[in-house]
Amino acid sequence: MNKAKLTIVGAGPGDPELITIKGLRAIEKANVILYDALVNPLLLDNAKPDIPKLFVGKRKGVHSFSQDQINELIVENALKYGNVIRLKGGDPFVFGRGYEEIEYAAKYNIPSEYIPGISSSISVLGLQGIPVTHRGSSESFWVVTATTSNGELSGDMKFAAQSAATVVILMGLTKLPNIVELFKQHGKSDATIAIIQKGSLPDENIAVGTISTIIDIVSKKHILPPAIIVVGNVVKLHRL
Amino acid sequence: MNKAKLTIVGAGPGDPELITIKGLRAIEKANVILYDALVNPLLLDNAKPDIPKLFVGKRKGVHSFSQDQINELIVENALKYGNVIRLKGGDPFVFGRGYEEIEYAAKYNIPSEYIPGISSSISVLGLQGIPVTHRGSSESFWVVTATTSNGELSGDMKFAAQSAATVVILMGLTKLPNIVELFKQHGKSDATIAIIQKGSLPDENIAVGTISTIIDIVSKKHILPPAIIVVGNVVKLHRL
Repeated sequence: MNKAKLTIVGAGPGDPELITIKGLRAIEKANVILYDALVNPLLLDNAKPDIPKLFVGKRKGVHSFSQDQINELIVENALKYGNVIRLKGGDPFVFGRGYEEIEYAAKYNIPSEYIPGISSSISVLGLQGIPVTHRGSSESFWVVTATTSNGELSGDMKFAAQSAATVVILMGLTKLPNIVELFKQHGKSDATIAIIQKGSLPDENIAVGTISTIIDIVSKKHILPPAIIVVGNVVKLHRL
Repeated sequence: MNKAKLTIVGAGPGDPELITIKGLRAIEKANVILYDALVNPLLLDNAKPDIPKLFVGKRKGVHSFSQDQINELIVENALKYGNVIRLKGGDPFVFGRGYEEIEYAAKYNIPSEYIPGISSSISVLGLQGIPVTHRGSSESFWVVTATTSNGELSGDMKFAAQSAATVVILMGLTKLPNIVELFKQHGKSDATIAIIQKGSLPDENIAVGTISTIIDIVSKKHILPPAIIVVGNVVKLHRL
């Protein structure tokens, strides 16, 4: 009856009303939930009160699980409880390592379902009045993680810096000096840039400037990671 | 009491359970709804039965409204009914021209709210077992529209074809020969490509191949627009 299964659910950017109906129903029916640091804990209130809810996120000063440990926990819990709801911030496939968990579960013949989430890469900008695309400002957008598995800036970033695309950089705040340098190298010192912390939440914080000025502004506004960086002409539309 | 307002709501990729809680609540409270062709009409069943629901989408054989006419309708209806719910497929800011409507409403001092939607550019791939990013396969993704305002292939496409990014092309099926040619020019004849029609819906259809083979496969599988094109190594993960 409780067949082993993995359901990877995108929880959205933070606002608990920005989860999908399908995602909410999965939480309501869950027998066990494994959730990440970027998931709004208010979402857990929709689950049955007596089920295990395991925090497996990375947060300063708290014991953090490695991806291998999370994979093991998924399999263990699926075999014990049936359907594991794996709740992740944003969308599980946007740098969420969701597919790695699906691959691991598949090794144990545990089937998976993916329930998409509202990705911060689009929505957090939009909620600040910065549309990720807009006729006349941007015909494309490029979403890149600053922190690759080898710790270097992604090689794709140099193409992104040359393009006319809106460039959205996730997990990039600690690498801001490198990012600024890269855009300068491609003649983009005057490009507009915004950095948004805690997007969609009441204590949201934003810094807006140019490639030349942004480091000072981020420091003055006390923006802290995790934050979303967006570079491009659409930033000029901020707060119409 | 019924103050003029524009609320732009992303309806998601098609599955009516892939709208957000916030989006659904906006529909439930609506006094008037203007909706597009890519919106699942089942969503309208959540609205009060006696409110006006205006179809303003583009569909073959049906009178289609220009963007200017839609802008006018928004203002007219906002002044008449108060809060206009503008329901759009996917996310309103991903080539949805949502910001143009916000700009137009602002000229009449009508304030706007944006409620993000699940973008097809991420979710439709994911629902087919193609994660938009995956460690070892892709460190970034690029979303581009094939059909720009001047009817040409976007200039950004040539950077996209050179990068290691997952390239997601919206509104591109009628330009498939040009897209195939562009990737061939950049030595990508063997790149894997998938084309998905009616993603997230029961009558979904998919073609998977390489840049060299895809035109034949699309023809055999009778894929029709609108469809989503994805090029990159992540396509190899299709249906684990």
